[in-house]
This record gives sequence, C-alpha cells and structure tokens, in this order.
Amino acid sequence: MYKTLSGKEPSAGVLESSKRIVANMKRKPHLVIVLVGSDPASEVYVRKKIEKAQAVGIRASLEKLENEANESDVLKLVEKLNKDKDVDGFIVQSPLPPQIDQMKVTEAIDPKKDVDGWTSTNIGRMILGMSETFLPATPIGIMKMLEYYGVEIAGKNVVVVGRGNVVGKPLSYLMLAKDATVTICHSRTKNLKQHTQNADILIAAAGRARLITAEHVKEGAYVIDVGTSKLGDKIVGDVDFENVIKKAHCSPVPGGVGPMTVSMLISNVIEAAIRKGENR
Amino acid sequence: MYKTLSGKEPSAGVLESSKRIVANMKRKPHLVIVLVGSDPASEVYVRKKIEKAQAVGIRASLEKLENEANESDVLKLVEKLNKDKDVDGFIVQSPLPPQIDQMKVTEAIDPKKDVDGWTSTNIGRMILGMSETFLPATPIGIMKMLEYYGVEIAGKNVVVVGRGNVVGKPLSYLMLAKDATVTICHSRTKNLKQHTQNADILIAAAGRARLITAEHVKEGAYVIDVGTSKLGDKIVGDVDFENVIKKAHCSPVPGGVGPMTVSMLISNVIEAAIRKGENR
Repeated sequence: MYKTLSGKEPSAGVLESSKRIVANMKRKPHLVIVLVGSDPASEVYVRKKIEKAQAVGIRASLEKLENEANESDVLKLVEKLNKDKDVDGFIVQSPLPPQIDQMKVTEAIDPKKDVDGWTSTNIGRMILGMSETFLPATPIGIMKMLEYYGVEIAGKNVVVVGRGNVVGKPLSYLMLAKDATVTICHSRTKNLKQHTQNADILIAAAGRARLITAEHVKEGAYVIDVGTSKLGDKIVGDVDFENVIKKAHCSPVPGGVGPMTVSMLISNVIEAAIRKGENR
Repeated sequence: MYKTLSGKEPSAGVLESSKRIVANMKRKPHLVIVLVGSDPASEVYVRKKIEKAQAVGIRASLEKLENEANESDVLKLVEKLNKDKDVDGFIVQSPLPPQIDQMKVTEAIDPKKDVDGWTSTNIGRMILGMSETFLPATPIGIMKMLEYYGVEIAGKNVVVVGRGNVVGKPLSYLMLAKDATVTICHSRTKNLKQHTQNADILIAAAGRARLITAEHVKEGAYVIDVGTSKLGDKIVGDVDFENVIKKAHCSPVPGGVGPMTVSMLISNVIEAAIRKGENR
C-alpha cells in the first residue's frame, strides 16, 4: 500500500523546533499580516497563520484595509511597515482586489522583511543560491515535507506541473539545487502524460481540479498536490487522490502542503528577527 | 540536409538595427568594460566587444586592473562606474582572478547599469516577467537566433543541458516564458540520453567538450551549442558537430552563439541609455 503524505506531522515538527527557538529569544519576533477586503478564504488562511504564529510564541498582528482601498493606501501601509522597527516581517495576503497591482505592492516590500520571499530581489537571490534571502513558504514547505518522508531528490526526475511565480518557478529551482533533473510542464505542454509518467516525484501546481489522474503517474512515485479548487462545495486538489493513492505515494488536500506553508512562513519570520538582531 | 545555424547573419541583423537606433541618438551610449588581469581569452572577448560596440556608434572604453588587484580595488571601481553619469552600462569581464569574489562584485553593480543582466535584482525581475530588467546576453541571443531561423518554441520540448547562472538557469526561464515545456539536465542527471532524445530544441551549455553526440539527438531537432572548450589547440563546443549535423540542425562553435552574445550586450547598452534618458 502507498503512503498518504500528510503535512500535519512534518509541519508539527517544524513548529515544535520554532517554538524552542522563540522560547530562547528575549525579544519575540513580530509578524504583521495585511488583509485587504473580506474574501472568506483569505480570512480563514490569515486566521490560521496568526493562530499558529502565536502558538509558537511569535507576536502576530493583523492590519485590515477595506475592500475599496486603493493602491496608494496599500503602498502607504507597506511603507509604514517597512520603516517600523518593531516589525520583523510582513506579508500582504493574496489575492488583492482587482484595483490593486499585486506585483507593485510586492515589489514595495523591503526584501529584509519579505517573509513570503516574493520580491524580485529575494527570488533572484534564491536563483543564484545566495544565503541572504527568504525561500518562498510553499516551495520550501514541499522540500521539507519530502525530507520528512525520506524521499531522495538527487538524480531523480522531478516533473512540476504549473509555472506560477509562487510555486512552480521557485520550486523548480529548489529541486535543481538539490540535483534533481527538472521538467516544467504547463497548460501549453503537449502530451502532459508523456512527461508525468516519467516522474519519480510529481508536483501538481496547476490549479486545475483533478488534472492528474492515475494514468499520469508512475507506479511508486511521490505525488505532491499543491492545488486547491472548489468542486461544488468540496475543496479538491489537482490530483485525483482516491485513484492515484492506489498507485503512488500522494499528499492529500486538505491536510497536505497547506500546513507546511504556514509553518515555513513562521520559520521565515524567526529568521528575519534573527538577521535583524545580527545587524544591530 | 540539415542547417548549420550560424550566428553571423542574425548577429549582423541585430547590429544593423542597433546602428540605426544609435545614429538617431544625440548622445551616444557609453559602455565600459572592466578587465582584471590579462587572461588571453578574456582579452580577445573584450576586444571583440569594444570593436563591435564602436562599429555601431557606441562609445566603448576599457578599464584595466592588474592581475594582483584585490577585491576592494574592483569594488571601488564598480562604485565609481555606478556613480558616473556618463556611463550607461558596464560589465566586469569574467573570470576574475581567484582572490576576488565574482558574486560580490556582480551584486555591487547598479541594476540599472548591469547590462550583463547578472545581478540578483535583474535575474529576479526576469523570472517574474517584469520589464525593467536586462536579459542576460547569451540566453537572449539564443532566443533571437532561434527566432531568426523561424524555430517555433511554444509547446515544444526544450532540453537544457547545464544549470549555470549565466546560461542554463536564465535560458530555461526565457523558454518557459515562450511556452516551451522545459527540462533542465546537468552532471547529476541519470540517463541523459533519455531526456535529450526527446528534445525538439536541445541546448548544450554544460561546458564539456563534445558531450552531445548523434545518439543524444532526435532526427530533425534544433541543437544549439553554447560550450567552448579547448581540445588540444582547437576550440570545440559541447556538441560533436560533424556527426550531429547529419541528423539535426546545429549551431557551430565558433561562429554560432558567440557573435549573438556580443550583439545582445550592445542592445542592452542602448536600452540602458534610452531608459536613462526617459528618467531624466
């Protein structure tokens, strides 16, 4: 039988070690989350992040802006948080309302406080293998999860389905840095199956409900599902879990990558606080 | 018979259009090349860059430092060039002598003048698809060359052999942005052939003499050779050209990618000057 790659245990492990680190810090790290509008899913994510951050001893606070906020309101708040010496790291929860340019907001964040690791500066530093960066939470969460389950990466064929800035692109580079042979597929890929059937590790990050079926998957592969779509009133991933699990190890949705993302964000906040301390 | 993908004609085309643009500029763009030490190959490359830049009407000058120069000498010069308002763009010719940290020097360059496109800021901007960046000369030169030969990229299988910061990594992203399905192979890849045989477009950028033989290549593929190694007193590429050309379209070494690199560098210098003008 194949393993269900739950994110709960590895995530709990990361949070435990974060808790121990924070317990030894005189000044507790401070995370701020900016939430614009009242998207119900975003409110759930934000609440989870704040709860888990507080559970490890981090100060976590919320800055809310109305749905009608304009870009300059958000940019002003970003500027304020950049300057605030008591803020170690902050994130602007996505998606933003349509009147606001997501990239412009991201680029305004001080890379030293960019704990999502989404600014061009931090992405560039990651690509070049520099240490002074924050690795984006979901990709590094996937790497930690595979490490937890003892999955070897060097020399393996890794296929990433999806080429977004948040998961597909950065994850491809983290896999490459661990000596995987990496293939990046996407909506314009012809004959997706031909590529995915060759994967020792398959990452589904396309955001298309149940795109990956059993016939896409090699027997005994490791399949990580990063998708979350609504199908009726059910949350489903990019992978047809029920059938794929009969053939390969697979992470569930929910309860797979999600918890890892939150834990890695918290690790980044602690790292930001430690670096700030070093620079004093 | 298969095409020899010479870089001379497409490179001449790029230079021609650069020349026309510069002819219409009141203030001629100014490129500075920093050369540390007296590596003979570097001296040849630098001379070529200066000659071609001058031929299109750009001012190009050389700043030479002794082989014994230390890191702070180089960093001081970089700082001076960053501040010099008459310098539109500059590059530090690699390789640098061993006592100097290449990455530290690159990161010191003002991204607005980084016409090699090697700073983390410009790499990150490229990855995120932002316009305010300089695309690294060799990768964008390869894209232009394929365009010149009418090679379709969208939906094709592109295999890049080599994962360096100068070619492999940035080129993978440019290919992805053009809707290719991209596989990145390297020294730790198992069964290289299995991947390369599947390539519609194969990029050899591993720096290993004649690594790619006819049996690595699919009939009718496009093969671009980015390698230059010394074999005896001959300069050879990563591709066994004589045999591969019987089976696939292939770029030669020398006379393939090399001339494209110089032309694209010059395009970047002109672009830097135009952007500076706009910002006045």
